Amino acid sequence: MNKITGYTGLYGIVANPIKHSFSPMMHNTAFQYLGIDDVYLAFEVEENHFANFITSARILPIKGFNVSMPYKVKILSYLDELTPEAKLCQAVNTVKNDHGKLIGHISDGIGFIKACEEKHWDLDQQKIVVLGAGGAARAIVAALTKQAKDIIVYNRSHKDWVEQMNQQCHCSITLKSLQDMQSLKNDLKDAYLLIQTTNVGMEPHTDGCLIPDKSYLNKSLKVADIIYNPQETKLLTLAKEKGLEYMNGEGMILYQGAVSFEFWTGQKMPISEVKKSLKME
Amino acid sequence: MNKITGYTGLYGIVANPIKHSFSPMMHNTAFQYLGIDDVYLAFEVEENHFANFITSARILPIKGFNVSMPYKVKILSYLDELTPEAKLCQAVNTVKNDHGKLIGHISDGIGFIKACEEKHWDLDQQKIVVLGAGGAARAIVAALTKQAKDIIVYNRSHKDWVEQMNQQCHCSITLKSLQDMQSLKNDLKDAYLLIQTTNVGMEPHTDGCLIPDKSYLNKSLKVADIIYNPQETKLLTLAKEKGLEYMNGEGMILYQGAVSFEFWTGQKMPISEVKKSLKME
Repeated sequence: MNKITGYTGLYGIVANPIKHSFSPMMHNTAFQYLGIDDVYLAFEVEENHFANFITSARILPIKGFNVSMPYKVKILSYLDELTPEAKLCQAVNTVKNDHGKLIGHISDGIGFIKACEEKHWDLDQQKIVVLGAGGAARAIVAALTKQAKDIIVYNRSHKDWVEQMNQQCHCSITLKSLQDMQSLKNDLKDAYLLIQTTNVGMEPHTDGCLIPDKSYLNKSLKVADIIYNPQETKLLTLAKEKGLEYMNGEGMILYQGAVSFEFWTGQKMPISEVKKSLKME
Repeated sequence: MNKITGYTGLYGIVANPIKHSFSPMMHNTAFQYLGIDDVYLAFEVEENHFANFITSARILPIKGFNVSMPYKVKILSYLDELTPEAKLCQAVNTVKNDHGKLIGHISDGIGFIKACEEKHWDLDQQKIVVLGAGGAARAIVAALTKQAKDIIVYNRSHKDWVEQMNQQCHCSITLKSLQDMQSLKNDLKDAYLLIQTTNVGMEPHTDGCLIPDKSYLNKSLKVADIIYNPQETKLLTLAKEKGLEYMNGEGMILYQGAVSFEFWTGQKMPISEVKKSLKME
């Protein structure tokens, strides 16, 4: 381990709750492996102290930080600048303190795509079905717009961002109702990738699954669930039983961290070291 | 090194400038050796942001922090409680965040005495001469009052605290003028210990020395200089040439850290490990 001295810099993550997060282990492993003289800590901050956290970040200073629930949107008004990705998502999970200027970025969607790349899934000009339209879906869809041809978002309720993003991008993004299971089944017939972004199937309700049965999955479909607890959701079990390629949310967690890390340091995160440290291998 | 996770806690030091400080190395070495899941960083904070630093300490939260120049007095008004030592000195170099209550303590003087103890200097009921009456002198004298019989402080200018402290303590504390060299010479004739607390002799003006020559030093006098850069001031060279016992300021630095560490953690600092890490052995 590198020695911590008076010159050692500080990174972190602000959220509530957050102590269980993988992010400190990921970034500290990367800092240590690359000999970068910084540490990364978790800051569990209450809502009424959030403005003070931003002040802290400016004066200590904190060199960069991740932002997680419930602050990914709230933080927007405190930042000096947003990357195009963060503007498109109207959410931020990564802040760089650039000599006092706080620049917001979002690495979740780019991280998801890098996890797909690791599996050699080629999303170029594909049709992709997304379950859910919350913050994670929005970040993923925003990143997909640079490659995919046709994105269909299924959600229980209406979400304005889908139509707005459709107008800002070259690819087609459509919102459909999760109540219309026949339409979902039809869309999945020629889809390349199904992405599950809701909390249905997450601990402790692991018997939940938005897809009723294997007949919804075409025989060359790829299936991604952003849940990583459990490691295999009921949806992924269906995909496995049908012999499909699939992945859980660990890859997205890992690669969103890698994208943040590079945004801050300009260096590649040493992925295999970090996987070892997280026991992902 | 212990792994840094989301559960790892934060300590630090606030001052300006501060990055060169030994304290981060000392405390991190101790945390790591004892398996305490905390890190200690240096926070270089400008005067106009000092109030915000205190807010940061409360909300992050920072579990404890040292305070150095120029904030040792300024911090008093931000604290919830002072130890008797801090009250006597009207200065703080150590703050413990006790579930949101900030308690101020001063470890400099106690640290100086522990450094004397390491050298087996027995200060009990002794006559001690102190050069200088600044913050360091005040902290040392406050700690000495519990043991010494007679403390004579030599300073260029008047300082109210000397008479005030004299009235609050059992031992005798007198202020005399550094212009009266004959008086200083007389006081040193039967003194047990001479403590140099000014910056005279410090880099880059290493030829400075408040004691004109060896004739001022009685043949069993012990000599302490709180300067540690250079390691041997001109005063200590005089003491060495006369064959006297002497010490520089490293011991005080080390043991004030040990006192702070115990104040925060309730555990003894592993002195020999810390000395190794600071290359003091």
